[in-house]
Amino acid sequence: MKSVVVLSGGLDSTTILYGEKRIAEEVFAISFNYGQRHKKELDMAKATCEKLGVSHKIIDLSCIKELVSNSCLTSDIEVPEGNYADENMKSTVVPNRNMIMASIAIAYAINIGADEVVLGVHSGDHAIYPDCRPEFIEALQKVAEVCDYKKIIVRAPFLYNDKGQIIEKGLEWVVDYSLTWTCYKGLDKPCGKCGSCRERAEAFENNGVIDPLLCD
Amino acid sequence: MKSVVVLSGGLDSTTILYGEKRIAEEVFAISFNYGQRHKKELDMAKATCEKLGVSHKIIDLSCIKELVSNSCLTSDIEVPEGNYADENMKSTVVPNRNMIMASIAIAYAINIGADEVVLGVHSGDHAIYPDCRPEFIEALQKVAEVCDYKKIIVRAPFLYNDKGQIIEKGLEWVVDYSLTWTCYKGLDKPCGKCGSCRERAEAFENNGVIDPLLCD
Repeated sequence: MKSVVVLSGGLDSTTILYGEKRIAEEVFAISFNYGQRHKKELDMAKATCEKLGVSHKIIDLSCIKELVSNSCLTSDIEVPEGNYADENMKSTVVPNRNMIMASIAIAYAINIGADEVVLGVHSGDHAIYPDCRPEFIEALQKVAEVCDYKKIIVRAPFLYNDKGQIIEKGLEWVVDYSLTWTCYKGLDKPCGKCGSCRERAEAFENNGVIDPLLCD
Repeated sequence: MKSVVVLSGGLDSTTILYGEKRIAEEVFAISFNYGQRHKKELDMAKATCEKLGVSHKIIDLSCIKELVSNSCLTSDIEVPEGNYADENMKSTVVPNRNMIMASIAIAYAINIGADEVVLGVHSGDHAIYPDCRPEFIEALQKVAEVCDYKKIIVRAPFLYNDKGQIIEKGLEWVVDYSLTWTCYKGLDKPCGKCGSCRERAEAFENNGVIDPLLCD
């Protein structure tokens, strides 16, 4: 089996990359620069691929910036603080982002003769991002079956898992979480205040470990 | 109704743009530069939008060039000549192109509050391009219904029409076909030999009219 992993450089997709390395014959990673506020996640994605010896493509989608507008892409809106479940986190949504990334990852898979595209969607995002809901993933799986003559399988192994469960699995797989980035701000250390930071901290706490990014 | 038309600058999507102008309250066009061999189609798309007073975005996707390889994108493979139905026309396929373009058009539609995305897929492409088949369009329609909280409608009005029927409709709508480009080569005039040129010529002939691009 030949597998393409959509790798953001966050902890969910990085854990998936480690998981695929265990089961697939060949693994290829693809990341997207869609004009994020900072590139720390992409730097982490690159570092993880170098560590694991995985081929890594970074696709420049910054051109879509002019089509969308929200706090992930522009620096004139303040990053919301608080828990992820808050209404204000909706401002971090890039419309249809998962479909865009999946469609390009599928094109890549077709081109290199890969069998599947693996996404890091998880249950914590269902309520906030419409393109993280199970019904979206199911519809995406169906379109991937007919977009080429050979079926491409789309998998989201953590679709029904939360971040705590993902880290639990990642600790078993010895994922190097020091090479992942979650904070919406691109400082040297995570800000510790934004919704992403708080969710990440809670997930590590639930596993009784300290986030390596917070160690000196 | 607010409508986003994926406009290549070829005759199918240009005809659709004229059709949407007749029925939608607001029409927005979106075109893609995916590193095509030449940009004549995009120039034509721009000219048509200027003529019709339609807002037009051109999205630069040339970054996907490194993921795919075929005669549309690279100039080191010779453009196949002959009829479209020929096996050799398969070398002009960009994998999963329609899903990539549709996903970005959907993102644009979500952002501007549009109701639908309209594609120029037609029956003549079913046999050659897997992502032009009715089963693909149906699957795409379903994913567009769940990728955001509001359903986006995907329409392909010419899905079961051939180029001759499209031109028949376009002549009724007074489409300016001198502002469309079909030839795979980017010369001053259509080459008249490639599969695209031959198919276009036949479609005009079937309507008893002369292609304005061939008039002096």
